[in-house]
Amino acid sequence: MSEILPPRGYKKEDTEKRKEWLEKKTGFHLNEAGPDNPEDLRGIIENHVGFMHLPMAIAGPLLISGTYAKGEYYIPLCTLEGTLTMSMTRGLFLTHLSGGIKTNHIKQELSRSPIFIFNDIDKSKQFISWINEHFDDIKREAETTTSHGKLLRIDKYPSQNSVILDFIYYTAEASGQNMVTIATHKACRFIIENYKCDSGFRYYIESNFNGDKNPAYKSLLLGRSHYVVGSALIEGKFLRRLLRVNAKEYVDGWIQCTRGSQEAGIFGMNMHVANALTAIYLATGQDVASVVENTGGIISYEVRNSDDLFATITMPSITVGTVGGGTRLKQARKNLEFLGCIGKDSSKKLVEIVCSCALALELSLGGAIVSDEFAFSHAKYGRK
Amino acid sequence: MSEILPPRGYKKEDTEKRKEWLEKKTGFHLNEAGPDNPEDLRGIIENHVGFMHLPMAIAGPLLISGTYAKGEYYIPLCTLEGTLTMSMTRGLFLTHLSGGIKTNHIKQELSRSPIFIFNDIDKSKQFISWINEHFDDIKREAETTTSHGKLLRIDKYPSQNSVILDFIYYTAEASGQNMVTIATHKACRFIIENYKCDSGFRYYIESNFNGDKNPAYKSLLLGRSHYVVGSALIEGKFLRRLLRVNAKEYVDGWIQCTRGSQEAGIFGMNMHVANALTAIYLATGQDVASVVENTGGIISYEVRNSDDLFATITMPSITVGTVGGGTRLKQARKNLEFLGCIGKDSSKKLVEIVCSCALALELSLGGAIVSDEFAFSHAKYGRK
Amino acid sequence: MSEILPPRGYKKEDTEKRKEWLEKKTGFHLNEAGPDNPEDLRGIIENHVGFMHLPMAIAGPLLISGTYAKGEYYIPLCTLEGTLTMSMTRGLFLTHLSGGIKTNHIKQELSRSPIFIFNDIDKSKQFISWINEHFDDIKREAETTTSHGKLLRIDKYPSQNSVILDFIYYTAEASGQNMVTIATHKACRFIIENYKCDSGFRYYIESNFNGDKNPAYKSLLLGRSHYVVGSALIEGKFLRRLLRVNAKEYVDGWIQCTRGSQEAGIFGMNMHVANALTAIYLATGQDVASVVENTGGIISYEVRNSDDLFATITMPSITVGTVGGGTRLKQARKNLEFLGCIGKDSSKKLVEIVCSCALALELSLGGAIVSDEFAFSHAKYGRK
Amino acid sequence: MSEILPPRGYKKEDTEKRKEWLEKKTGFHLNEAGPDNPEDLRGIIENHVGFMHLPMAIAGPLLISGTYAKGEYYIPLCTLEGTLTMSMTRGLFLTHLSGGIKTNHIKQELSRSPIFIFNDIDKSKQFISWINEHFDDIKREAETTTSHGKLLRIDKYPSQNSVILDFIYYTAEASGQNMVTIATHKACRFIIENYKCDSGFRYYIESNFNGDKNPAYKSLLLGRSHYVVGSALIEGKFLRRLLRVNAKEYVDGWIQCTRGSQEAGIFGMNMHVANALTAIYLATGQDVASVVENTGGIISYEVRNSDDLFATITMPSITVGTVGGGTRLKQARKNLEFLGCIGKDSSKKLVEIVCSCALALELSLGGAIVSDEFAFSHAKYGRK
Repeated sequence: MSEILPPRGYKKEDTEKRKEWLEKKTGFHLNEAGPDNPEDLRGIIENHVGFMHLPMAIAGPLLISGTYAKGEYYIPLCTLEGTLTMSMTRGLFLTHLSGGIKTNHIKQELSRSPIFIFNDIDKSKQFISWINEHFDDIKREAETTTSHGKLLRIDKYPSQNSVILDFIYYTAEASGQNMVTIATHKACRFIIENYKCDSGFRYYIESNFNGDKNPAYKSLLLGRSHYVVGSALIEGKFLRRLLRVNAKEYVDGWIQCTRGSQEAGIFGMNMHVANALTAIYLATGQDVASVVENTGGIISYEVRNSDDLFATITMPSITVGTVGGGTRLKQARKNLEFLGCIGKDSSKKLVEIVCSCALALELSLGGAIVSDEFAFSHAKYGRK
Repeated sequence: MSEILPPRGYKKEDTEKRKEWLEKKTGFHLNEAGPDNPEDLRGIIENHVGFMHLPMAIAGPLLISGTYAKGEYYIPLCTLEGTLTMSMTRGLFLTHLSGGIKTNHIKQELSRSPIFIFNDIDKSKQFISWINEHFDDIKREAETTTSHGKLLRIDKYPSQNSVILDFIYYTAEASGQNMVTIATHKACRFIIENYKCDSGFRYYIESNFNGDKNPAYKSLLLGRSHYVVGSALIEGKFLRRLLRVNAKEYVDGWIQCTRGSQEAGIFGMNMHVANALTAIYLATGQDVASVVENTGGIISYEVRNSDDLFATITMPSITVGTVGGGTRLKQARKNLEFLGCIGKDSSKKLVEIVCSCALALELSLGGAIVSDEFAFSHAKYGRK
Repeated sequence: MSEILPPRGYKKEDTEKRKEWLEKKTGFHLNEAGPDNPEDLRGIIENHVGFMHLPMAIAGPLLISGTYAKGEYYIPLCTLEGTLTMSMTRGLFLTHLSGGIKTNHIKQELSRSPIFIFNDIDKSKQFISWINEHFDDIKREAETTTSHGKLLRIDKYPSQNSVILDFIYYTAEASGQNMVTIATHKACRFIIENYKCDSGFRYYIESNFNGDKNPAYKSLLLGRSHYVVGSALIEGKFLRRLLRVNAKEYVDGWIQCTRGSQEAGIFGMNMHVANALTAIYLATGQDVASVVENTGGIISYEVRNSDDLFATITMPSITVGTVGGGTRLKQARKNLEFLGCIGKDSSKKLVEIVCSCALALELSLGGAIVSDEFAFSHAKYGRK
Repeated sequence: MSEILPPRGYKKEDTEKRKEWLEKKTGFHLNEAGPDNPEDLRGIIENHVGFMHLPMAIAGPLLISGTYAKGEYYIPLCTLEGTLTMSMTRGLFLTHLSGGIKTNHIKQELSRSPIFIFNDIDKSKQFISWINEHFDDIKREAETTTSHGKLLRIDKYPSQNSVILDFIYYTAEASGQNMVTIATHKACRFIIENYKCDSGFRYYIESNFNGDKNPAYKSLLLGRSHYVVGSALIEGKFLRRLLRVNAKEYVDGWIQCTRGSQEAGIFGMNMHVANALTAIYLATGQDVASVVENTGGIISYEVRNSDDLFATITMPSITVGTVGGGTRLKQARKNLEFLGCIGKDSSKKLVEIVCSCALALELSLGGAIVSDEFAFSHAKYGRK
């Protein structure tokens, strides 16, 4: 059974052994790429002076049955938090033993939300009508700027003397933040040039309403970028063996965690999905600042079949891509290839992997807290 | 004037030129360190297989007058978001011209918050009394596990049939998440062994109440780790020259942004402090997943002297450190040295730098939105 | 000018004078109705034993130009908070002098949101498709239970192993909480009897998602029941005369209030719209517990024409009606008649009046705080 | 057993029978008081023109074992929501059969929170020091304005270029909103006259930070006015008999409700405590607009002894009083007397009764939803 888990150890030869094991196991050399050429960094960073070498590890294997991701995956992680890789591996192993993780990719919609400000509150309805009537023109303008993005619809939010237009796009394999900015700007220029209002109006390309780089209830409710759900049914015997708790104890512990979260006014309902997201984002060239908008997942646990644990996670916002931006970095591309996340629907596949790993890491942490081994494991793995 | 800004360009020789300029300007070779030895990664990552080479840039100079940070600083950044470095540099230059950024370090308090669950709701008062009476013992136990951490106090939150104890520590130069876990665990063992309750009780080391890796209103209100305030008074002429807006236009635009934020249920009140934090955290070996708990800064702008812009930012939670964890990575240490963030009070100094850079980046973005150059700059710097 | 304001005073003859003045001014005897017959209280209250006699006052006049409400109105209020009536009257008078309050009724949509729970996460898409295909049937079933309610659409929120169906109705002149419950229950029975899922499913008529009797971000964002916007442009001279502040001082004060609100994690952005809503709801037979779901209005102020104050309010949720429930009480009906809120579109008219009065009361309170007369006026009117 | 429940019915003679039963049962004539004299309404309402006659009912009996409230109580309610009285009675009866409701009064603290604005961000520490040094003087000034209120402490919240001082009072039997306004204003005058700052400063008596008439996370976390916890352990057999569900079904249903609440961004975690609060507040002369700040209670349920239901509620904010304001109305006083809420600690006693009734009403509603009788009961009791 241990053959499916990477060999452990901190010595140079351990790392070498792991790389060999990985190659044998998966056929992949993960890390032979040298640093990227400065010329290739255009569009990614300005004023480049060098590189930060973030240590990379391997967790897994994840066994997944998703809408797009299916099969077994080893997960490249970049993290500076000792324990994280071990803990995610434990969670993944636990779900692997129990048949793996299921995921359901619900939708993918990214928005930009310009605000149009009028002199008075009574201009909104007429403006909204005009937008509805000219949707085809606006869509055409927006889409001239992108070969892959599609403007799905424009949601309208009138408020005070203004109207926010939430331009909602399908961004295909791209995370798409720049795509929706540029497309929406083009569309807004069309609106400004063609819409007439006696008392005038002005606009800003962004009102902060779209939730870019912010935790937002709107994103929790309506989704932002990828919206995905995951679950695992853990057999009681594996739960007891690996986490040293039973299902009822686990759920009892989780209830206390929801109380603490409610009292503290926590956004979302999870312990640390931010950790899993950060580690995978870093390894796959994602914009890791997006984790703040993606962190609001909702987790719940219930006892099933009297002894098993049914764990579910809803992640209404995962803002990742498999083309463009940092995914062009050599190592990021290599890692995406390693995950099979290249080509059509690869962004959705990546999202399902991210969601599963977040669930696995939560499962393991929950176990550590309930069994009171949390401090011990951090003393062991989190210190020199 | 341009001598104080790094030379631009994406070519290999541009990067070389920038490194030379930086060395001449500051006396520092930023990036000669090779990757760390696997053996040195104990406590940082398990199952290490290689490195991810994140591109690093330089922004600045920041001119700052803080409680701890004083003088001029160039800022190492790791980012994959084109435009970010240019934009932060623009914001820093704008504040530099106007006399720099002021910061005020208010406090540094990190907590862990175990929950104690009783059989009934009427056990909380007696328990709280006992904790108060035994604070000295509890403190002594907690502090046996750490050479630098100090248990400042224990806040008590009774609720339902449980009591959350919020153990609040001073963690000196460490970000301290592991420190407070291990210390609190020791303290809890003491409580469990010595406190008697007829009907019994149980506990969990964490209730999610402390806001670790989560956006939490508690952290916004009471602070978590470092609490810092920053401000800049921008002269109107520089605002117009660099951002191509005047102060009144700027404030009018910001008001629309607060509307959008309120409607979307945004946590905090800022556009993207997450970006600045992420870039500096990555370059200085911080746990970048902490950005989600640090993202809730509150920004406001007002017109002063009829033409100037007064910008303020309150960041109630900046969870960083200058010792331990990822700060042990060679390049991270180099970057911390480069920032002068070594030794006593260096974590507070780093926090003031982070806060200032967040404010500068926001200032620049706000300008881009109000002048409607936002899409243009992202088309220029955010694409290949 | 003072003829348009009700005569003041606490003596019996003052009240008599006010009633005479009111009759002369408006032709209405407001308060001749004796208590209702117990038999008429069916559907309103059980276990009836008597009456609570809430004092009723008159504020105004409100001058309004809305989508439905137009002209001048005196407002019946029930309150136990001394100062409230005087303060609302001051705010209404202030806006009256400046040309009145504008309102824009945006929409009216009330929902009930049953949750359907499946065994697994992968059942949601099929279920949603079925709901879409059978919408006409479901609508017909729902509408058999109501003569006025219309099922507009069903929004679907898949999450975990469940799907929330948000049944969205137009409820005409009724506040409609019972209407949507009964209609949705009928619709759900249809779904349960006709939808087949191999692994079974269960449902609950409510998931708390609809925001009934709760402050909910969903209601702020998407609206609940009536969604209305209001504004007033206050001339500087009247602002100074009545509130003893100028427009710039007013806005400067408001900014501080938004800071305090952000730090405290206030839901919505207003000081006390709850007060205006409560007083009018009580006088017009509304369910006053709904104020908690209606309290999240967003207010903003700006200086216009260098000396005037432009005040706007967005109230995304006003859950009132003019038929059914407590509006059947004799005095409530009288008050609704007095407000002209009988018949077609009367609920929308009432909403616009409520929104205007909320704005007026806020305007007056803001003035009292900025001029530092707040404590004084409460010492005068809030004590015996 | 049915003797302890009030006789039902909507006919005039039913009401008479209920009043007789009540007198026989409790020795109280609840409703003989005629309307109050206009002269007595000073401090409660201005521009009085008459009365609104709200129907009043009786629910109960509540069996309670609290810190202050002990024994059996019938509860006067004013409501316009059919079903509410029956449902609360059902919940109270259910808990009565199982031994009653326990409550634990934790604390009573009401605040007002003026904001002091400086020219710059670096003035806060000096100001806070001065406040600390002069606390005794400030307290003396504040307390000159009140015979019962006590200034307990001043919490300081520095932010941007301002400091919010949260003046925290014990208000004895009064709800105290006016008390803390007037006392804090006096204290602020002292500060303004005695504190010197070179660059000047200004202040506002309120920053909205105190959470008055607003749902606020601060109030959830730190409490506002009375903070109380309640619980009941319901025997399985009574649960099945009265609510027609078992404990496991009940908890399973509640979990779905927490999901809906999380997704909708509900403030607090309960279905409709607002209903119970509103009905009792109206009957006892409370300011019912305060319900919006008191609505954030957190409820949880767990199965105990395999078949029983343990229900708990934390209500961190109940802003009520038994003297002053509307409690001076004749019927309100009568109802307070009827509840034994006169004299020392009567406000705390009232709070425990309110909390218990809120829990009972929730219990009953939860049962109706899980047993799918919710729509039926509203069709029966909520329509003519």
